[in-house]
Amino acid sequence: MQIKIHPNTIIIPEDQETLMEALIRHRLPVQNICNGKGTCGKCKVRMIGYVSPPSESDIKHLNKIELQAGFRLACTVQPEDGMVIELSFVESQDRKVSALLGMKTCNLDPGIEKVYIQTSKPTLADERGDWDRVVDDLRAATGRSFEKANLYILRKVPDVMRAAQFALTVTVADDKILEIESGDTTKRLYGVAVDIGTTSVAVALIDLNQGDILKVLSTENEQTAYGADVISRISFAMENQESAMVLRVAIRRTINHLLEELAVQTGIQLKEIFKMTVVGNTTMHHLFLGLDVSHLAVSPFVSACNRPLEFSALELGLEINSQARIQLLPNIASFVGGDTMGAIVGAPEVLAQGNHLLIDLGTNCELFLKTDHTMMACSTAAGPAFEGAGLAHGMRAKQGAIEGVTITDEGVVCEVIGGKEAIGICGSGLIEAIDEMRKAGVINKQGTIADPKKQPTIAPELLKRIRVGIKAREFVLAYGTSDGYDVTLSQKDIGEMQLAKGAVCAGIKTLVDMAGITVLDLDSVTLSGTFATYLKAQNILSIGLVPNIAPEKIKTVGNAAHVGAIRVLMDRRELAMSRDLYSKIRHVELGGSAKFSKYFMSSMYIEQ
Amino acid sequence: MQIKIHPNTIIIPEDQETLMEALIRHRLPVQNICNGKGTCGKCKVRMIGYVSPPSESDIKHLNKIELQAGFRLACTVQPEDGMVIELSFVESQDRKVSALLGMKTCNLDPGIEKVYIQTSKPTLADERGDWDRVVDDLRAATGRSFEKANLYILRKVPDVMRAAQFALTVTVADDKILEIESGDTTKRLYGVAVDIGTTSVAVALIDLNQGDILKVLSTENEQTAYGADVISRISFAMENQESAMVLRVAIRRTINHLLEELAVQTGIQLKEIFKMTVVGNTTMHHLFLGLDVSHLAVSPFVSACNRPLEFSALELGLEINSQARIQLLPNIASFVGGDTMGAIVGAPEVLAQGNHLLIDLGTNCELFLKTDHTMMACSTAAGPAFEGAGLAHGMRAKQGAIEGVTITDEGVVCEVIGGKEAIGICGSGLIEAIDEMRKAGVINKQGTIADPKKQPTIAPELLKRIRVGIKAREFVLAYGTSDGYDVTLSQKDIGEMQLAKGAVCAGIKTLVDMAGITVLDLDSVTLSGTFATYLKAQNILSIGLVPNIAPEKIKTVGNAAHVGAIRVLMDRRELAMSRDLYSKIRHVELGGSAKFSKYFMSSMYIEQ
Repeated sequence: MQIKIHPNTIIIPEDQETLMEALIRHRLPVQNICNGKGTCGKCKVRMIGYVSPPSESDIKHLNKIELQAGFRLACTVQPEDGMVIELSFVESQDRKVSALLGMKTCNLDPGIEKVYIQTSKPTLADERGDWDRVVDDLRAATGRSFEKANLYILRKVPDVMRAAQFALTVTVADDKILEIESGDTTKRLYGVAVDIGTTSVAVALIDLNQGDILKVLSTENEQTAYGADVISRISFAMENQESAMVLRVAIRRTINHLLEELAVQTGIQLKEIFKMTVVGNTTMHHLFLGLDVSHLAVSPFVSACNRPLEFSALELGLEINSQARIQLLPNIASFVGGDTMGAIVGAPEVLAQGNHLLIDLGTNCELFLKTDHTMMACSTAAGPAFEGAGLAHGMRAKQGAIEGVTITDEGVVCEVIGGKEAIGICGSGLIEAIDEMRKAGVINKQGTIADPKKQPTIAPELLKRIRVGIKAREFVLAYGTSDGYDVTLSQKDIGEMQLAKGAVCAGIKTLVDMAGITVLDLDSVTLSGTFATYLKAQNILSIGLVPNIAPEKIKTVGNAAHVGAIRVLMDRRELAMSRDLYSKIRHVELGGSAKFSKYFMSSMYIEQ
Repeated sequence: MQIKIHPNTIIIPEDQETLMEALIRHRLPVQNICNGKGTCGKCKVRMIGYVSPPSESDIKHLNKIELQAGFRLACTVQPEDGMVIELSFVESQDRKVSALLGMKTCNLDPGIEKVYIQTSKPTLADERGDWDRVVDDLRAATGRSFEKANLYILRKVPDVMRAAQFALTVTVADDKILEIESGDTTKRLYGVAVDIGTTSVAVALIDLNQGDILKVLSTENEQTAYGADVISRISFAMENQESAMVLRVAIRRTINHLLEELAVQTGIQLKEIFKMTVVGNTTMHHLFLGLDVSHLAVSPFVSACNRPLEFSALELGLEINSQARIQLLPNIASFVGGDTMGAIVGAPEVLAQGNHLLIDLGTNCELFLKTDHTMMACSTAAGPAFEGAGLAHGMRAKQGAIEGVTITDEGVVCEVIGGKEAIGICGSGLIEAIDEMRKAGVINKQGTIADPKKQPTIAPELLKRIRVGIKAREFVLAYGTSDGYDVTLSQKDIGEMQLAKGAVCAGIKTLVDMAGITVLDLDSVTLSGTFATYLKAQNILSIGLVPNIAPEKIKTVGNAAHVGAIRVLMDRRELAMSRDLYSKIRHVELGGSAKFSKYFMSSMYIEQ
């Protein structure tokens, strides 16, 4: 008997195992607090295709929408051959919400509004057409003219008008009517800001009447099944037309999945979402829109389109109101995309007078430097280490991830997200761990783990944590308890981080040089990116992620790109600003720079 | 064995019969000049679904596009069970072209243009995106800004740019880019004007660079299978959702069929058509767009939309360039539609100073009266008699139709379209026949055919043409020769025409009264409608289709509605004019008017 775990894992349950037991045995993520008794309601999964009848526990713990959508508790599901299961891998970003909620107050002018009108009933003396009546009354109510109609609305206008005695709510944007609804629905107007990362995708649901962030969710980008970084995605997309389509469908499905989850968790309806803003690097942008990526990765690295774009949800196959407006922030260049532009919009203080550097850390790393004379941007291939990928025990910053490390002679104390047992390490934990390991002498300046055979001068408690792994030495950060594996950092993991941070640091030095200033002239260095939120300035400086400057100049701002998308969602002037800005930023290609190569060699050391 | 003749006729071929022989035996229209020898190439039909391999005659007489599209010569096709055949029923409107070509010279400013640009090749020093390069160069070439992109173009821009060394032609409308093509295609820009009649649909292909009318074709509206007039179509559409869809698909298929035929006959490609204008009565307009018709036919007779509309070909499922603009002229009221507005645009002299009456004759009849103080319009249920429908031997004005009749004591002389044997009578022939029959005493003022038993005082040659048909008397206009049936007018046929012309005449009198003028105050009376082209002022007056006025004030203008569509196609200011006009025209509902009822009773007589 086989069960498929969506999208591409197969598990083979044993006799008498419940689905939850089989998932746990295969080390797949499922929450289990009541030990399978069906009382905690946390082991929620979703059945795709065949859905088994709900158990009593299902009915008790899941709401009607969840039940209809195929959600079941894994502990009550009896595996059957051919079942397809989707793990409820969407995370409510409570930690991130607090970071986003800390964003500066944003002006509220989304460019979409709902207008309530009471139209008059047709009579023989007033035979105007239904649509004409709506347009006339709307002009009277707003003083504006709405001549563009769409078939979707025209086809339903007679029914909608008559459903509530000719009272209706019209949703408008610029000179267009997006939707008509019976009665007064003016209070229900929502938008979603989407951050398409190479590794993960985050959505924020906003009440466009109030400006409140209602919910932030994130999940893995389904495209990761086809390559971990943008280069491998581009290669895959170029294999044939079908494969480009596969990637387009994958990201659309990821976003639609998150949207559905937003609706389930907040009780709003998807058709009440009328605006969406999207940030993403140029490759994500192109794959999402189905644009040709084949010129992105070869010199002279040309995108199909950089300027800001707007489409309808219908055109893009997104399951919100079909007429909703989807706005994409402009790209700056092939490898400095709308995510960087989003980070600038989200951290607008980098545009203030003086010299400011913005570092957007993700699977890729982009740098933006603004001086009083120029604006420049570049990308560095930092690799996915900052997102915890590519490491033996790397993981994203979620429940069970080590996010902070303190090393003393007595041993290692880890801060674990959720406060329970460590199951891996995320980017911020990694940077602090390396800094602490260097200070404790576990690794040297070159990043090499001390050789226990050479009797290094480190505390015995730490020495015994150094052991020889399969290929090289590794250091134990946390010993495993219940399910028996230790969270370690290997020599290879440390090397990955050295390459990543070396590329960032060399990029900064190159950019600063080209702008004709020095690192000391920088008035501020802003680190953005989800994982950057939890970085400490001191760690950043000691490991040499950024060149030596005063720690008080360093600031971390969380996922500024996502905040930028939220700002554009809330205030249309932010998009106008990005339109003014994107073509004025000079793109620097580090690939061909001898200066960068030189700096890169010297930036690999752990200490500066 | 059965063969289906698209859309809904079944014929049963006999053994050894060719398809052509079977069609002739079933009296279906097929041209046969060489008597089935395969040498004239005129018996062209189209096979749908299964297509038999082409014969030598097929290859000799049909071009490659026709062969690929399934066209075959009926005389070489051996019937097989289940075959589906479409008769090549599209008519080249040579007679109409000449009428249309007589239209006043029209300004040429279609609002769509092609711009040739030579873009530059991307380099490391100029990394602008492909689309950005096009938009920049286009702004340089035109001085205008084009920010709205669509996915269809964005997805192909990299390939199109590189296919002809970065030289391309961009088709633009307002601030939008509709298409990009490699190289210089500026010479190829076409538009189609469509007249959706209740009974027949006509299309005119226009070269939008030159302003030439290249081809005019017409065919039966496929919706006629579901009802002969607008009321029966509305009833059918309201049966259920499926049936409204059936009508929408039927008219779309009719138009697409004509478009394909235009392409086959002229060698232009459908994707080179970038603009389409559509006129039609309000019911045709609604069914074409898929709008709700359920409020059209019940008081207070409300349309879903009157104002002018614009869509893309993609939205409407039309097989021209997917981004082509489809513009629909505004409706005036539920039964005075965009066809009447088209007739006004097509015969703009009715808007000149003075009092002018426009009569648009078709399956329905609409009246438009313009005085120096008011503009009014109404519809009268004339019935389909003017289009030759509903009569024993009625037919549309095509090959074999009697279009003119002269009656003397020596007998009846018929003018037949195409000059060959008469097979029926069309509207203009009917009106002249009735006028002549009245003058010759064959019918009296009340329209009653003289009773031969009562020895009426008419010439013996005419008396013997009066005979008793199945239910009542009939008059033989033309004796049949080769296939043996006579073309006659029955008492019922005459009654149909009396009702029709009585309704028109009463409508005119009512409208003139309401405008506070008299018939004598009219400066001109313009009759439009395909069949009106061939009417003679004297006949119109003697049978009382219009009230008594000076014959020189009467003018016939052909299908003015179609001419209006062509004018809007060629010059966007014409659409702007119709937008200014439609809501200023006062609609008069004759249904509730006691005055109309009174006039109607007195307008039934043949003589005035």
